Amino acid sequence: MQKQYALKGNIIYTKSFGKFETVKDGYIIVEDTRVKGVYQKLPEIFNNIQLIDHGNSLIIPGFVDLHLHAPQFANLGLGLDKELMQWLETYTFPEESKYSNIDYARKVYSTFIRELWKVGTTRACVFATLHKNATKLLIDLFDQSGLSAYVGKVNMDVNSPEYLIETLEDSILDTREILEEYSSKYELVKPIITPRFVPSCSIDLLKGLGSLAKEFNVPVQSHLCENYGEINFVRKLHPDYKDYASIYDNSGLFGEVPTVMAHCVLVDEEEIELMARKKVFVAHSPNSNCNLSSGIAPIRRLITRGIPVGLATDVSAGHSLSMNSVLVNASQVSNIKWLESGRVDKPLSTAELFYLATKGGGQFFGKVGSFEENYEFDALVIDDSSLSIFKTLTIEERLQKFIYTGDDRNIKERYVAGKKIEEPKCC
Amino acid sequence: MQKQYALKGNIIYTKSFGKFETVKDGYIIVEDTRVKGVYQKLPEIFNNIQLIDHGNSLIIPGFVDLHLHAPQFANLGLGLDKELMQWLETYTFPEESKYSNIDYARKVYSTFIRELWKVGTTRACVFATLHKNATKLLIDLFDQSGLSAYVGKVNMDVNSPEYLIETLEDSILDTREILEEYSSKYELVKPIITPRFVPSCSIDLLKGLGSLAKEFNVPVQSHLCENYGEINFVRKLHPDYKDYASIYDNSGLFGEVPTVMAHCVLVDEEEIELMARKKVFVAHSPNSNCNLSSGIAPIRRLITRGIPVGLATDVSAGHSLSMNSVLVNASQVSNIKWLESGRVDKPLSTAELFYLATKGGGQFFGKVGSFEENYEFDALVIDDSSLSIFKTLTIEERLQKFIYTGDDRNIKERYVAGKKIEEPKCC
Repeated sequence: MQKQYALKGNIIYTKSFGKFETVKDGYIIVEDTRVKGVYQKLPEIFNNIQLIDHGNSLIIPGFVDLHLHAPQFANLGLGLDKELMQWLETYTFPEESKYSNIDYARKVYSTFIRELWKVGTTRACVFATLHKNATKLLIDLFDQSGLSAYVGKVNMDVNSPEYLIETLEDSILDTREILEEYSSKYELVKPIITPRFVPSCSIDLLKGLGSLAKEFNVPVQSHLCENYGEINFVRKLHPDYKDYASIYDNSGLFGEVPTVMAHCVLVDEEEIELMARKKVFVAHSPNSNCNLSSGIAPIRRLITRGIPVGLATDVSAGHSLSMNSVLVNASQVSNIKWLESGRVDKPLSTAELFYLATKGGGQFFGKVGSFEENYEFDALVIDDSSLSIFKTLTIEERLQKFIYTGDDRNIKERYVAGKKIEEPKCC
Repeated sequence: MQKQYALKGNIIYTKSFGKFETVKDGYIIVEDTRVKGVYQKLPEIFNNIQLIDHGNSLIIPGFVDLHLHAPQFANLGLGLDKELMQWLETYTFPEESKYSNIDYARKVYSTFIRELWKVGTTRACVFATLHKNATKLLIDLFDQSGLSAYVGKVNMDVNSPEYLIETLEDSILDTREILEEYSSKYELVKPIITPRFVPSCSIDLLKGLGSLAKEFNVPVQSHLCENYGEINFVRKLHPDYKDYASIYDNSGLFGEVPTVMAHCVLVDEEEIELMARKKVFVAHSPNSNCNLSSGIAPIRRLITRGIPVGLATDVSAGHSLSMNSVLVNASQVSNIKWLESGRVDKPLSTAELFYLATKGGGQFFGKVGSFEENYEFDALVIDDSSLSIFKTLTIEERLQKFIYTGDDRNIKERYVAGKKIEEPKCC
């Protein structure tokens, strides 16, 4: 007999792209780690299980952040009037080099995880640094917190500052060591293959990582077509490849295993075709793309072509850990994209964006991001009583108000895979 | 002998556009309502005045919000997947009609002012509704709070729903009554002439308001060239005028007295020329312009042409009362505008934007928004100890971190015109 319990509240989630499901004063039955069902009235067979009544609160799926850099957390909000390549050299690389120091890593990573908990992110695809030990620590800390994550040791063996580079051999060996140790160690925290991006990886390294991905059957994350300067650099480095995506593809890093690529602001038609065919995920990071003058990704177009999309903070090129901020910004830039595209690429609605921030990105983790039967139960309980005080709102409007005007103070409880997660200990 | 006191802390402000002035562990001397001077060492003559030591905190000028709608506060975060004209009809006009009820007005307006206090806005240019009594109440509540504001009774006598319209005669009479009663009543809260926008005002009304502005020598606020749909409507209504701005101009509402126009997203060359000549302020409201799919205002170009610019939340088309949010968004859209303009309109730096959010908008109020000698002392004391914990940052970087990652929890004290402002009582 598995552990069952019921949560009561105003339930809102999305099954399909752009359509809210709501149950006012409804019940979610959780069995072990997963959703058993959502009901308007509690079925009699559940009369004797534990009932947690959240009164007038909202119950929504936990947020999925499909791309962010844990070691850049200390730089949050800094240097955001630079472009990508300049920003990497001035702010990011010097900061990442500090993670050879495990004490520094422990201090920042534990704070980072606590802040992630605060803002209601229950699943995340995380870049660490190239440092093996700090990466292992980050995996362990995530497991201790109860949050779910893919965590990648970053690989970079060329075109990187001498204080933040590794040899091809070390890069492969260290990655293999982490995969061997962690692939099956934890239920909710897993390693992921993480070439930084094409400019900082030799073709041999990319191919080696492609082989490891296949051997260990682990997913891949990287960056693709973020910024003009970056793309020009890739073209100069690899004139023999037809485009950026094909470099990953030729190394077995583009959809052979589940793959997520951050940004995709400037993907061309052939790259879109390839991503659609190989079901490569896009981690849409609008705050980052605006902050670093990268542009606006053609998200409506990518979705229409059948490419799976999730939302991402891309901390610290994105300045906020909060998915609320990303949801708002993603809506705003989709409006500007609509104008830019001559009113062709329709703006993204709140329901569409909420889907991307939960089930859209959640699909990278399996059955995650919805309250449909058999989905892992990740949830936030939202007390919006301080936000909606002047009139009676629908559940959809209350969610919209929370997204646009709420913050961590409104998040009362967090659940991951059926378990209530307490505030992680820090430092 | 006037009252003097000193504040000690890490002082940062802007004298000129784009250049921070900083004094680490410095002193600001306040005499009565104004700044006497900023010093690295306390001059001996001030040895005996009261000293308030804020330790390691930042001391910055208070924020100036150059355009927002108090009665739309209850709608904050709602309906933001609509365009302007549709949004007005569905959300805004029905909400504003409620302000015939003075009890409702008291409830929302007092909460609104408390929230404005929270986020560190010390001066604001505020639209009320067309209702005379609720507008008077808003002026009184602002005065009681200690915050400074221009508050305008909205005028609208045509093309408005029957539940939210007034006759030409009432509009003029009610406005005159408010001007007579309030023009000299309070030191820091003043009435302002507020035609809603061209579509909702007859030419007779605009001309009547122009005469009142001149007669009472009070400033003017309105909307200009926000959105394509709106501009097309104005063209259809007034084919005999060469453009939107000239309709205000021909009515004596465009720079005869100090004038601020919200948005100016789509101003043409002749309008820019006129604004520059008549020193008409722009209230740049990027959150609003993104939320309602209006576009990105050409702020770099307007500034280069010598037009005075401030920043604004435009609540509730803008979803946040916080000027932090506007500063971030204004930076982001300036980056996108740089790309859109073929890399001609340079992005706005943090120092430039901070100037706009303080001294830029402050100039509409007189000597406001800086710590230069004889400026009214409006200030925020920022405790950023929760934000900057991993390394030593410069004062500029600490300000940047507060703007991008801080919120009302970091604001420890607020001052307006030399006086510390306590949390306003609410409801």
